[in-house]
Amino acid sequence: MTTVLVVHGPNLGTLGRREPELYGTTTLAAINAALVELASSWGWQISVFQSNSEGAIIDAIEQRAGDIDGLLLNPGALAHYGLGLRDALAGLTVPVVEVHLTNIHAREDWRRRSVTAEVSRGLISGFGWRSYVLGLRAMHGMLSDTES
Amino acid sequence: MTTVLVVHGPNLGTLGRREPELYGTTTLAAINAALVELASSWGWQISVFQSNSEGAIIDAIEQRAGDIDGLLLNPGALAHYGLGLRDALAGLTVPVVEVHLTNIHAREDWRRRSVTAEVSRGLISGFGWRSYVLGLRAMHGMLSDTES
Amino acid sequence: MTTVLVVHGPNLGTLGRREPELYGTTTLAAINAALVELASSWGWQISVFQSNSEGAIIDAIEQRAGDIDGLLLNPGALAHYGLGLRDALAGLTVPVVEVHLTNIHAREDWRRRSVTAEVSRGLISGFGWRSYVLGLRAMHGMLSDTES
Amino acid sequence: MTTVLVVHGPNLGTLGRREPELYGTTTLAAINAALVELASSWGWQISVFQSNSEGAIIDAIEQRAGDIDGLLLNPGALAHYGLGLRDALAGLTVPVVEVHLTNIHAREDWRRRSVTAEVSRGLISGFGWRSYVLGLRAMHGMLSDTES
Amino acid sequence: MTTVLVVHGPNLGTLGRREPELYGTTTLAAINAALVELASSWGWQISVFQSNSEGAIIDAIEQRAGDIDGLLLNPGALAHYGLGLRDALAGLTVPVVEVHLTNIHAREDWRRRSVTAEVSRGLISGFGWRSYVLGLRAMHGMLSDTES
Amino acid sequence: MTTVLVVHGPNLGTLGRREPELYGTTTLAAINAALVELASSWGWQISVFQSNSEGAIIDAIEQRAGDIDGLLLNPGALAHYGLGLRDALAGLTVPVVEVHLTNIHAREDWRRRSVTAEVSRGLISGFGWRSYVLGLRAMHGMLSDTES
Amino acid sequence: MTTVLVVHGPNLGTLGRREPELYGTTTLAAINAALVELASSWGWQISVFQSNSEGAIIDAIEQRAGDIDGLLLNPGALAHYGLGLRDALAGLTVPVVEVHLTNIHAREDWRRRSVTAEVSRGLISGFGWRSYVLGLRAMHGMLSDTES
Amino acid sequence: MTTVLVVHGPNLGTLGRREPELYGTTTLAAINAALVELASSWGWQISVFQSNSEGAIIDAIEQRAGDIDGLLLNPGALAHYGLGLRDALAGLTVPVVEVHLTNIHAREDWRRRSVTAEVSRGLISGFGWRSYVLGLRAMHGMLSDTES
Amino acid sequence: MTTVLVVHGPNLGTLGRREPELYGTTTLAAINAALVELASSWGWQISVFQSNSEGAIIDAIEQRAGDIDGLLLNPGALAHYGLGLRDALAGLTVPVVEVHLTNIHAREDWRRRSVTAEVSRGLISGFGWRSYVLGLRAMHGMLSDTES
Amino acid sequence: MTTVLVVHGPNLGTLGRREPELYGTTTLAAINAALVELASSWGWQISVFQSNSEGAIIDAIEQRAGDIDGLLLNPGALAHYGLGLRDALAGLTVPVVEVHLTNIHAREDWRRRSVTAEVSRGLISGFGWRSYVLGLRAMHGMLSDTES
Amino acid sequence: MTTVLVVHGPNLGTLGRREPELYGTTTLAAINAALVELASSWGWQISVFQSNSEGAIIDAIEQRAGDIDGLLLNPGALAHYGLGLRDALAGLTVPVVEVHLTNIHAREDWRRRSVTAEVSRGLISGFGWRSYVLGLRAMHGMLSDTES
Amino acid sequence: MTTVLVVHGPNLGTLGRREPELYGTTTLAAINAALVELASSWGWQISVFQSNSEGAIIDAIEQRAGDIDGLLLNPGALAHYGLGLRDALAGLTVPVVEVHLTNIHAREDWRRRSVTAEVSRGLISGFGWRSYVLGLRAMHGMLSDTES
Repeated sequence: MTTVLVVHGPNLGTLGRREPELYGTTTLAAINAALVELASSWGWQISVFQSNSEGAIIDAIEQRAGDIDGLLLNPGALAHYGLGLRDALAGLTVPVVEVHLTNIHAREDWRRRSVTAEVSRGLISGFGWRSYVLGLRAMHGMLSDTES
Repeated sequence: MTTVLVVHGPNLGTLGRREPELYGTTTLAAINAALVELASSWGWQISVFQSNSEGAIIDAIEQRAGDIDGLLLNPGALAHYGLGLRDALAGLTVPVVEVHLTNIHAREDWRRRSVTAEVSRGLISGFGWRSYVLGLRAMHGMLSDTES
Repeated sequence: MTTVLVVHGPNLGTLGRREPELYGTTTLAAINAALVELASSWGWQISVFQSNSEGAIIDAIEQRAGDIDGLLLNPGALAHYGLGLRDALAGLTVPVVEVHLTNIHAREDWRRRSVTAEVSRGLISGFGWRSYVLGLRAMHGMLSDTES
Repeated sequence: MTTVLVVHGPNLGTLGRREPELYGTTTLAAINAALVELASSWGWQISVFQSNSEGAIIDAIEQRAGDIDGLLLNPGALAHYGLGLRDALAGLTVPVVEVHLTNIHAREDWRRRSVTAEVSRGLISGFGWRSYVLGLRAMHGMLSDTES
Repeated sequence: MTTVLVVHGPNLGTLGRREPELYGTTTLAAINAALVELASSWGWQISVFQSNSEGAIIDAIEQRAGDIDGLLLNPGALAHYGLGLRDALAGLTVPVVEVHLTNIHAREDWRRRSVTAEVSRGLISGFGWRSYVLGLRAMHGMLSDTES
Repeated sequence: MTTVLVVHGPNLGTLGRREPELYGTTTLAAINAALVELASSWGWQISVFQSNSEGAIIDAIEQRAGDIDGLLLNPGALAHYGLGLRDALAGLTVPVVEVHLTNIHAREDWRRRSVTAEVSRGLISGFGWRSYVLGLRAMHGMLSDTES
Repeated sequence: MTTVLVVHGPNLGTLGRREPELYGTTTLAAINAALVELASSWGWQISVFQSNSEGAIIDAIEQRAGDIDGLLLNPGALAHYGLGLRDALAGLTVPVVEVHLTNIHAREDWRRRSVTAEVSRGLISGFGWRSYVLGLRAMHGMLSDTES
Repeated sequence: MTTVLVVHGPNLGTLGRREPELYGTTTLAAINAALVELASSWGWQISVFQSNSEGAIIDAIEQRAGDIDGLLLNPGALAHYGLGLRDALAGLTVPVVEVHLTNIHAREDWRRRSVTAEVSRGLISGFGWRSYVLGLRAMHGMLSDTES
Repeated sequence: MTTVLVVHGPNLGTLGRREPELYGTTTLAAINAALVELASSWGWQISVFQSNSEGAIIDAIEQRAGDIDGLLLNPGALAHYGLGLRDALAGLTVPVVEVHLTNIHAREDWRRRSVTAEVSRGLISGFGWRSYVLGLRAMHGMLSDTES
Repeated sequence: MTTVLVVHGPNLGTLGRREPELYGTTTLAAINAALVELASSWGWQISVFQSNSEGAIIDAIEQRAGDIDGLLLNPGALAHYGLGLRDALAGLTVPVVEVHLTNIHAREDWRRRSVTAEVSRGLISGFGWRSYVLGLRAMHGMLSDTES
Repeated sequence: MTTVLVVHGPNLGTLGRREPELYGTTTLAAINAALVELASSWGWQISVFQSNSEGAIIDAIEQRAGDIDGLLLNPGALAHYGLGLRDALAGLTVPVVEVHLTNIHAREDWRRRSVTAEVSRGLISGFGWRSYVLGLRAMHGMLSDTES
Repeated sequence: MTTVLVVHGPNLGTLGRREPELYGTTTLAAINAALVELASSWGWQISVFQSNSEGAIIDAIEQRAGDIDGLLLNPGALAHYGLGLRDALAGLTVPVVEVHLTNIHAREDWRRRSVTAEVSRGLISGFGWRSYVLGLRAMHGMLSDTES
């Protein structure tokens, strides 16, 4: 059974409450539910992990690396300085899709560079909670060789 | 009827032949066909424009700005220096979705900065021809307030 | 008869409609009319050209270079990257006056540098449609050796 | 009665003698006279201040801020490092027009950035003593809502 | 009852022993005691948290965000690269006061930029353990609208 | 009798009127009064100096250097370019405390670097008029070896 | 029959008249004639294209890519910012030789970087109209495996 | 008994499996065993710690700082941004030897700067698992004042 | 009679007392006396001016420009940011010799660039009070065409 | 008799053996022979010098400067840092043609800048051993005013 | 018989006398003796070369390249600008080990970048004369596939 | 007997002939003679060395370091990149005076930084051959504790 690990980085646990004018009012639970539902429609399963700690995220990726077919990752701010996470991604053999709620090219200068996107297959940024759905579709397209 | 203008920038007319190891073997015609088909399934229509000239692209956007509900744009290399195009996008009141075939964060340093993405709603980059399909889905999600 | 070529660069054709809070509500036609009227009061004539394409602007300057006494130029965003246009201006023997509707020193960092102003006689920036009128007066002062 | 404060920054007291091939042979007195004459033709009055000291210029602006309708400023080299003057301008509620005799975009690199222009309404640069006249006309256009 | 969360970042647990010529000989316990005493004098209470892990600090802030009236933060070196912590602070609705034992402007170049201070109310830096006391007074001044 | 010289740099004389949304409505006189009162409570005296001129500030520091026990300085914009003032501070043997009304890390990029803070004992920034009070308390703590 | 496409970029149509002290007095027609004559001596043919528009140059290269054995290109100022042209060259399978009339390393700083030379076989710069002749000889050497 | 703490940073737990063409096929267990054996030959003992979390590494160093004679550290990617770890090392009074499996000067630009090496005694980089052995020998040389 | 204007910039009035380990114990009066004595030996006279204010220094140079044969200038920190002073020097027709007590290339990075030396005849830096004597000798050599 | 000095810089003595995939298999002797033969066909003579030492190259140029009509130079890596060689070239009155075997714009970033090309007549780069032949032809064209 | 060329760059001939607080009191002769002894214990031989001239070092490497199994190099300051030496190393087929007496990451900023380390197998830096011994052990480990 | 070593760097052997409009028409022999004469007047002797090779200059300094009382150095272009020479100077215990014929702050940007001046006692730059005489006088002042 195709399994996608969904990893949510720092500060994503409070989604829906934190700066809603920027990040929206949808909660992480709602996003996870939407992803599970979409995945189920293809016969896929989703494994979810959220942490505010880079080290814990690397641990999680390390532990599950052998059991997953793809990684859907919202690194949060780690995208811009998490070189340890970057090295962890570089060591994966399954595809990584990076997503961001906001458009990282339309905010502070330092958000434009994503060190994790450098070693990902692709990036989806700026569509709010839909970035995740589109990211899962991107994964589906690549792994199943369908449109999306 | 909801209309999306699809604009393909410089060098995209030769897609499928140009550096296929980088950009894939799918032709622009095939991509356009896939977009039309997907749009039709929602009762939407697609208007397509390709040009190697920044000026002609600005002309096209100017002329159709009043008749479209969204712009799906692959600016090609113009993403990195086309400040005139950037200003044209900034003047639009409909949403802009920027797509790239390759992952602009995983190539030359200068490709990391997209001046057009600065004024777009979001960016999808790195999924080959699927970037377009995902971009159209992103537009659908936003305009119809559905998942994608 | 003294002739001034007035060139409007990319995105200026939609003036009055595009981001009016930034660029004002005066149309290009109205600006041109004001310039013609002021020029007529001195017995001068105005030749107007607008294009969204750098190449077409260089063509126009090349073709008319022998018939004009001065160039009044709003390069739009080309001011910041149009090195081809810059070289065309450097090749002119008549004076060039560069104008901008907005104050290029009070916006994004990249708008502060004008590569075309480097080879112009002077720059007038930030007075909306009046920047053109002041630019024509600057030309009048220089060519007729009057105050302005 | 509409009053414009005209401020001339460092080294402008010796105008006409200092590097005439660069700054021209017109004296400051002659410029002031021309401004007074033009202002009078509109029923306006001009108040003039020159100093080589940034502190004294800030003093002068502070003291007269309540009595003027606009500030016509040639900051000289202070344009490029006078952050104290910049903050003084930012605190004004009347419009500021910055003028330069020479074209600051066509000289040394450090002259391209004007920290005072960042907080001015607009900039006129490169027309010798005529820059002042054009600056006053710009002020007239803005305050009287006429052409210039 | 007004509650201030006091967060001590990486390496602050060993205060008093680590490089005393730089950071002083006062221990963290002593600082906390001083803060508790001062807070008590106003009828306030202090909640203390120390961790060497950015993730754990974000966790702590997330968990207590609803129960506190202000955050007194010594981010340690995280001030200079902890973008995840920065985003956590940006999401807070209570005021943040950043303190440093040493003067961050008088040490290595990279210590001059504090990404967390960007989203704090203010910064107090260079007064050793007194920086904390002054920070608590700053909080008192703001929350109680008293002098400090 | 312990004496603290309080120096207010450029544009601080108009405090309360200049950009009150940024700098607050408290006047300099009110701040001075508050400082005098606090100092008196410790049996200290305050000597106040304000100038818009860097040279005059250096003069004042030079003249009083032998009679003071500490310098409380709000350099205003001079913090960012006043290298002459910086050298004057470096030559002092009494402690210098630098204060700013606004948070210099949360505004323009160039405000982040304070060349005067490099040679000060510490920095307090962002608490409006309370920055001064906290600065005086910091001085008190250091000179009297009390808490603050 | 071996065919070389010779492309002249922006501002090269006015060669001989534009800034002759910099670019010489030889016209483009004369250069083309010299190239045709030299090519004929080897039994080769030359196809010539000049445009001031980057888009038109990409169009021309695209259209003739299948019929040529080499591209001799003077990109003019596009060398320094024409990333679209750069991508077009990168997609060619025949060798590209870049030539410049002036020595791009001995002029403005920004002329030192050629983004088109990055994807060319080699560069010849600084020999006036002879740069073209040398460029054609370089092509001859490579394609015929002769000396030059 | 001389004790050396060996710390392995992020991603080193999967050594032997992760990107073996870059990092080799030797496992961390094998490296540890080699170090223990070499240390034993001198009558020394080794204490090993691995974590993917910067905070946990700082914790470990803090806790064992009093019981060790030297620290042999492979910071992994933390070398390039772990300023918290850097400060922890700066606080140690025993020597630190930094080792890297790959040559950090022969990879990406950002790997060239090691903020932890700034406060270490020395650096050994590029010899695969042998970097550790050489690092232990370096420690032996320094602590026992022998050759290595 | 040959007259040299000797200008001492900010903070030089306290020479001998300020940071003597850096600037020496010789007072400004002693330096002036030595210069007067040396000048007298050639039948020259010295005119001395010291100010902490850039504006006052420009005033002094302006007023005396017509009466002097050379300017011996220690700009102090103004060397590094005094662009107004720089423009004043550029306007002089007599030679300028810049001197510094300390070696500006052996201190902070920002002291390496002297904007005033850019428009001076030469620079003498690092010899304490002897820098002035050597500067006067340099002036003597140039003006009298002798050795020094 | 027209004489061209051919100078080969560091590492060119081992041509043909060193990194042949980059620099080709042609030896320096073969290149020299080809140059002699071509020169002879015009009645010219060639003088050859190779050294790995910048100083020796400057010596050679100094000694022969009076006897040569042109310098054909492959500075090797000295092109990128040999400022002493650059000054030697600047002092020559005969034309200098710089050649490189590889395309310096298509390799490492630091190879893009040639400090020696700044003071050369022109640059030929990227054609392997043919760069020398083309360089000699360029010299022939310039000195004999023929095509090449 | 395995032969290692040991090259000591500029200023290493005076080791033991030059800045002993930085570089130690061990002489180069003593280091060479230690290396010979260690090499002998493996049945290896050492060939030593010292020069202050980059050219002579390249000569030596060129001449001995065919007879050696490895190069142990202390490039001294050439590490930071010797691009000619860098190219020479790049052309070697035997492994290069770079050593430095001091820790190049803990000194001036420009010492952090080693252009020679970019093309070496690895770097050992900061252990005084022991860096050489460790470097030879690194070579031994690599060539003999032993531990070190 | 006090001995000063005078070292002339690259390209100084041709002084008087090379670019005389920049470097003057005085020959090196004449300069040396003037220095010898001045030195003799104090009972000092001069030892002269000129080389175009950095290595040879370091050799010369090394060999004579024990026999000299001061080094008068014109490093030529080595001032800007000769880090090996810089390290040699840093190792000297006698004072170094650096001189330049031209004003290094008034030429190309890269000439402004002197890496050798960083470790010299002082710098004299811009007075042609008189820079040497002044440099010797500076040495005399320092060594004999006289005025100059």
